[in-house]
Amino acid sequence: MSVSDNVRARMVEGSWIRRMFEEGAVLKQRFGEENVFDLSLGNPVMEPPPQFGEELKGLVENAAPGMHRYMPNAGYSETRAAVAAQLSLETGIKFTWNDIVMTCGAAGALNVVLKTILNPGEEVIVFAPYFLEFDNYIDNHGGVTRVVPTDDRFMPRLDALEAAVTAKTKGVIINSPNNPTGVVYSADLIRQLGALLQKKESQYGTQVFLISDEAYRKIIYDGLKYPPVFHHHRHTIVATSHSKDLALPGERIGYIAVHPECSQREELMDGFIFCNRILGFVNAPALMQHVVRNLQNVTVSVDDYQKKRDFLYSHLVEMGYSVVKPQGAFYMFPKSPLENEVAFVEELRQWNVLTVPGRGFGSPGYFRVSYCVKDATLEGSLAGFKKAARKFNLC
Amino acid sequence: MSVSDNVRARMVEGSWIRRMFEEGAVLKQRFGEENVFDLSLGNPVMEPPPQFGEELKGLVENAAPGMHRYMPNAGYSETRAAVAAQLSLETGIKFTWNDIVMTCGAAGALNVVLKTILNPGEEVIVFAPYFLEFDNYIDNHGGVTRVVPTDDRFMPRLDALEAAVTAKTKGVIINSPNNPTGVVYSADLIRQLGALLQKKESQYGTQVFLISDEAYRKIIYDGLKYPPVFHHHRHTIVATSHSKDLALPGERIGYIAVHPECSQREELMDGFIFCNRILGFVNAPALMQHVVRNLQNVTVSVDDYQKKRDFLYSHLVEMGYSVVKPQGAFYMFPKSPLENEVAFVEELRQWNVLTVPGRGFGSPGYFRVSYCVKDATLEGSLAGFKKAARKFNLC
Repeated sequence: MSVSDNVRARMVEGSWIRRMFEEGAVLKQRFGEENVFDLSLGNPVMEPPPQFGEELKGLVENAAPGMHRYMPNAGYSETRAAVAAQLSLETGIKFTWNDIVMTCGAAGALNVVLKTILNPGEEVIVFAPYFLEFDNYIDNHGGVTRVVPTDDRFMPRLDALEAAVTAKTKGVIINSPNNPTGVVYSADLIRQLGALLQKKESQYGTQVFLISDEAYRKIIYDGLKYPPVFHHHRHTIVATSHSKDLALPGERIGYIAVHPECSQREELMDGFIFCNRILGFVNAPALMQHVVRNLQNVTVSVDDYQKKRDFLYSHLVEMGYSVVKPQGAFYMFPKSPLENEVAFVEELRQWNVLTVPGRGFGSPGYFRVSYCVKDATLEGSLAGFKKAARKFNLC
Repeated sequence: MSVSDNVRARMVEGSWIRRMFEEGAVLKQRFGEENVFDLSLGNPVMEPPPQFGEELKGLVENAAPGMHRYMPNAGYSETRAAVAAQLSLETGIKFTWNDIVMTCGAAGALNVVLKTILNPGEEVIVFAPYFLEFDNYIDNHGGVTRVVPTDDRFMPRLDALEAAVTAKTKGVIINSPNNPTGVVYSADLIRQLGALLQKKESQYGTQVFLISDEAYRKIIYDGLKYPPVFHHHRHTIVATSHSKDLALPGERIGYIAVHPECSQREELMDGFIFCNRILGFVNAPALMQHVVRNLQNVTVSVDDYQKKRDFLYSHLVEMGYSVVKPQGAFYMFPKSPLENEVAFVEELRQWNVLTVPGRGFGSPGYFRVSYCVKDATLEGSLAGFKKAARKFNLC
């Protein structure tokens, strides 16, 4: 009676990540923190880069009058200009401050984007496996999620996408580097994706936004260069955050960037600014906006993450696990040796290794491993992975 | 095509406060900042109290590992406990950390509350004049706003409320000290309000939440003591912020507090925590949660605000304006000498005095004056108020 029917139903469905988090807390209390190998969360153990601390100290020691007051709902123009300059540098496309809205992280950015564009019943396409929270974001604003499968390398199946796009499709969410798989989409794939959406736009006389969640854009390995999504579709909106590249997930700072040549760009930006206000964000936190202004080209140590990936990937493969090698983010998504991956995740839990069932990402039969943890945690997890592998005859 | 029909319609309706803000910017450019007397915004010119700077400096200089990471969606239990302790002190009711969810300001808190409780078409009652943004918050989550009038002292008309509460009523939003009038509801009024809601709950077998936006709770004059809303209705939810009492509106830090004896309290709290997550807030900004933990009994100088009120109120009354004397917040809501208050606000603007038409708060025929500005701005505004008063024969 107190909680709405829809919220109650969605709560019951629950979040697998959260469930594992709670089970983990119980295990840690029972066995001691150092004897539980929690690979269930994307909460980076790394501290923000040193430049962050310097920037923050400088701002706090030389506090400027008014620095905690309201600013325009889109954020400080200086911060928006700094983001635009960095995007211009990365993409070769000329962005200005006017193409940027500062937000409360990527989750805030995505809610603002979806609130702005969705009429009731309009559809948004996602590619499984995906961050299931997208379903909630889409539902919050009256939209409907359409799930399109990926291939055995976790790349979007364009034939399936082609069949799924209809006159009701308002957007396609992509997330590369990907949570939960760690794969990075190639420029060629994004080009094909853009071409397909443009074909459909012509066919239906619609605008289909490519909404790119790029929270892991700067966490990319093997010397790979991030292929900008903006290059391939002018109806591209980036909704992203500094949670991972600056290791600040608790601070809620991110942004929306709109392609400068997006049609009806001005109304769209007005919509984002308006929805940032009315959804109750009002503006991205002021102090963090000041901080990230000068940190647009700063990133946590990607080498450290790459070493962790190399370590875990090589061990899991050696044990016989089937894993698509991740090239970014800090997750991998191995195939479960049991068809019912919940049972397998439960098996790993018997050895105090915590992971998340693939159905928590719309893809049963896999499980997610997060390696943004201390080396000792990764090392400690190997015994459990090995025992489980032996039990199911992987090695 | 790019922006949803509903968002487009709501944007066109627009915000009077924002319109005045934009007109003000033009005037300031033309006449110089010091020659424009902008009383249109609730963006306090005061700096946060010195304890805020000390707390922030201490946290930044002795940065604790993990202090910018994710924490539970409800916030740090230590911060929640500090808020609970302060509320216990103020109300005499025993709150625990478990009754509190830290939020991105009051706007975030209200959106989380409304998302959690509203089924489509359910109604929320507000008392005009009111902060029109409530309409957007209610509409965001499928609710319908019902407006109930106040009397000539801006106190809710309980007879009208009684007629307005139906089986579809899910909540009543109050805001005392009030924006835009500055009036403070008496304990007796809140008692009657609570009794009426309880009568209606019995009548309909429903739960009607009293949702109290208390952003100005600590900014209260004339030695008045704030009458806790929690005393009079167990289905009370406080949705508030530190934007005004600590002068931090840009930082987005506030909280939801639920009456410890609220029925179905546990499901309600779960709902708030869940909706804080899925609406994209995820959690209140981490650093500000650390900061406000030890500042629960700290407030900006209320004496300074009271002096500003005394100065402006006495001058306006002397000039012949009809003003209900505000006892809190930093607004007053004089009667417009012209029936069409937009024309009167335009008249004031001719003298470079910026205020907001009452229809921006659902009450035409009045205008809002915000006095959270420098003394020089208040002093400078008097000439314009006087000229307008003379023109319309107030004096």
